[in-house]
Amino acid sequence: MQGGDGVVVGLGGGGEEEQVVNPWEVSAKDGGKIDYDKLIEKFGCQRLDDSLIRRVERLTSRTPHVFLRRGVFFAHRDFNEILDVYEKGEKFYLYTGRGPSSEALHLGHLIPFMFTKYLQDAFKVPLVIQLTDDEKCMWKNLSVEESQRLARENAKDIIACGFDVTRTFIFSDFDYVGGAFYKNMVKVAKCVTFNKVVGIFGFTPEDHIGKISFPPVQAVPSFPSSFPHLFAGKDNLRCLIPCAIDQDPYFRMTRDVAPRLGYQKPALIESSFFPALQGENGKMSASDPNSAIYVTDTAKDIKTKINKYAFSGGQDSIENHRKYGANLEVDIPIKYLGFFLEDDDELEHIRKEYGSGRMLTGEVKKRLIEVLTELVERHRKARAAVTDEMVDAFMAVRPLPYMFA
Amino acid sequence: MQGGDGVVVGLGGGGEEEQVVNPWEVSAKDGGKIDYDKLIEKFGCQRLDDSLIRRVERLTSRTPHVFLRRGVFFAHRDFNEILDVYEKGEKFYLYTGRGPSSEALHLGHLIPFMFTKYLQDAFKVPLVIQLTDDEKCMWKNLSVEESQRLARENAKDIIACGFDVTRTFIFSDFDYVGGAFYKNMVKVAKCVTFNKVVGIFGFTPEDHIGKISFPPVQAVPSFPSSFPHLFAGKDNLRCLIPCAIDQDPYFRMTRDVAPRLGYQKPALIESSFFPALQGENGKMSASDPNSAIYVTDTAKDIKTKINKYAFSGGQDSIENHRKYGANLEVDIPIKYLGFFLEDDDELEHIRKEYGSGRMLTGEVKKRLIEVLTELVERHRKARAAVTDEMVDAFMAVRPLPYMFA
Repeated sequence: MQGGDGVVVGLGGGGEEEQVVNPWEVSAKDGGKIDYDKLIEKFGCQRLDDSLIRRVERLTSRTPHVFLRRGVFFAHRDFNEILDVYEKGEKFYLYTGRGPSSEALHLGHLIPFMFTKYLQDAFKVPLVIQLTDDEKCMWKNLSVEESQRLARENAKDIIACGFDVTRTFIFSDFDYVGGAFYKNMVKVAKCVTFNKVVGIFGFTPEDHIGKISFPPVQAVPSFPSSFPHLFAGKDNLRCLIPCAIDQDPYFRMTRDVAPRLGYQKPALIESSFFPALQGENGKMSASDPNSAIYVTDTAKDIKTKINKYAFSGGQDSIENHRKYGANLEVDIPIKYLGFFLEDDDELEHIRKEYGSGRMLTGEVKKRLIEVLTELVERHRKARAAVTDEMVDAFMAVRPLPYMFA
Repeated sequence: MQGGDGVVVGLGGGGEEEQVVNPWEVSAKDGGKIDYDKLIEKFGCQRLDDSLIRRVERLTSRTPHVFLRRGVFFAHRDFNEILDVYEKGEKFYLYTGRGPSSEALHLGHLIPFMFTKYLQDAFKVPLVIQLTDDEKCMWKNLSVEESQRLARENAKDIIACGFDVTRTFIFSDFDYVGGAFYKNMVKVAKCVTFNKVVGIFGFTPEDHIGKISFPPVQAVPSFPSSFPHLFAGKDNLRCLIPCAIDQDPYFRMTRDVAPRLGYQKPALIESSFFPALQGENGKMSASDPNSAIYVTDTAKDIKTKINKYAFSGGQDSIENHRKYGANLEVDIPIKYLGFFLEDDDELEHIRKEYGSGRMLTGEVKKRLIEVLTELVERHRKARAAVTDEMVDAFMAVRPLPYMFA
């Protein structure tokens, strides 16, 4: 997994200037913005509409998460069926993951985990989190040891998001692949031809067979029988996968295969990409630390990055700004506030004032700096409190006694 | 693994009428005999010559096995280096295997195991035996459960060959893949492109990715680090693989990759194919029970099959036979006696008498029936004595305390 990376690479790969979205490449047409409507149509998923969000609110008796209210999670597959199951008083489980490629996570990385924590709290359901250290070992050419080290480091950031250890199993592929999990990998692999993965993932004959072998590894946590210690005898338990939409290809494949194995299709709830500081057609990349806010950034780093690099939709002079107002469609501070400023009224106020030109970019950035500094500081403290023993506890292969309580 | 199957399929696949030898197809040019000299040249392995066999005799202080003396095992890769290691007083380990596709083994299946038992006894070395139930599940479209059941059934036949439980670890892939073994699978997979496996194994884009993922599974038992419970800290231990030469492609790939992982290349000692009853250009197939002698055949079955189906090199009339003698080059009873009649003098005597026409086909077949009936009966008794507890003991993931004694 490398969901939520929000990696927006320029062009390349696409060829015919179509937008390209797969787990390793997200590129818009002509270097512009991703057209999410087209993506929904192309992938064949469904839009997450207001009636579903209201249903979530009704079933969980709590205000839907900001990421739901504001359309960050905007698409789904069979999420309504998950709600049907839940409404009948039955359980489901959550599955998400991360490809541990870099030591420091940026804000885009946190989004699926923040949302998954909300889902776990709201529905009181078990959760499995896959750390695809095998994938990163293969794609990034890291050593096995380095991939495993990064997996444990990333696990600390994930735990810092506040997951409930009695309901959460975090595993690394290098530790966990085997047994029932490996059997399911073989069952899936039998159903998918090389031509098929070429069509879905864009592999080429020059790719190594490690890449070609990998899709079943990410597929099988969708099946409860891959976790006999968690779901023994509950092989029909439904699975809901919160992820960034670039991971959809894995689960399209998984859903295609599931009925042939007598398994339930996993449901999905999918997010858009978190934009780079330089704007939605920019590139948030590990090689450019100024393209993103990292959870390791200091208050001073955050202030500098936002003031210096956050792309502004404000006008080029104060006079013009007062006259025309900011272009909120391209303004990164407004977009970031849309993700992380929880107060709907305040956000609406800022949008109005800034859009009309009464508020200046500097004032919006100042508020964003406050919001992100608090968020990053909170994360930093929570992560510092995560001990090795806690990581061991989350990653222990164990039954979760309270999972179905 | 499906080594030693001796599956000789007619034509097909090859296209240009070249002989085709890979783990799933063995076909000679124009439906004739396999040209082993050409195979050695094409694969780039070495002929197992008399000086090497004499060296084995000297180092082990025992008569070399019939399969060595008579050229059944006829090719090798770096076997001399294994003998160098042994001569210095160091150990190596043996690795062989089987793809558990059918309940009853035929004589061709026993050959690598009979020979491996000889090597284990002669060199007093540890042995790992891989049962590729995952492979058979994928290639033969068996269920996981049926593949695992066949693996255990086949393990009983293997144990019946007389292996030393204190020096032998038998494992099924479905049970054992994971941990250090899986890490090595990923390391190997990273080094091999799809184009490469197409070249080595003849895969096509229509093949499922289970097939494409499999070669690393058969490769990694060549590396001692795949078995931390057996060889912990002995990561430089050399490995010798006795197998039929149709398995060579797997280990060419393995030897190609090993240095890039900092691992020793496995050495090989490779056998020719065991011919079908109908002759060397015939087809020994599970769908035609009359093409082979099975370890489950009764004395009566054996008698009938040999008398009725064993291709004879004798002449069409007694007069012509007395005059011209038998053609030993195509005679199956003589070939089978070459595998299983241990007495060199008696075999030479029969060859001479039969070749000159003084001995008739019926007499040779009679002797062969005796030899095979005894062999099969001995195997049947030994197999009947193999209990489930013994299978568990061989397959237990455990250190082998006497392994390096």
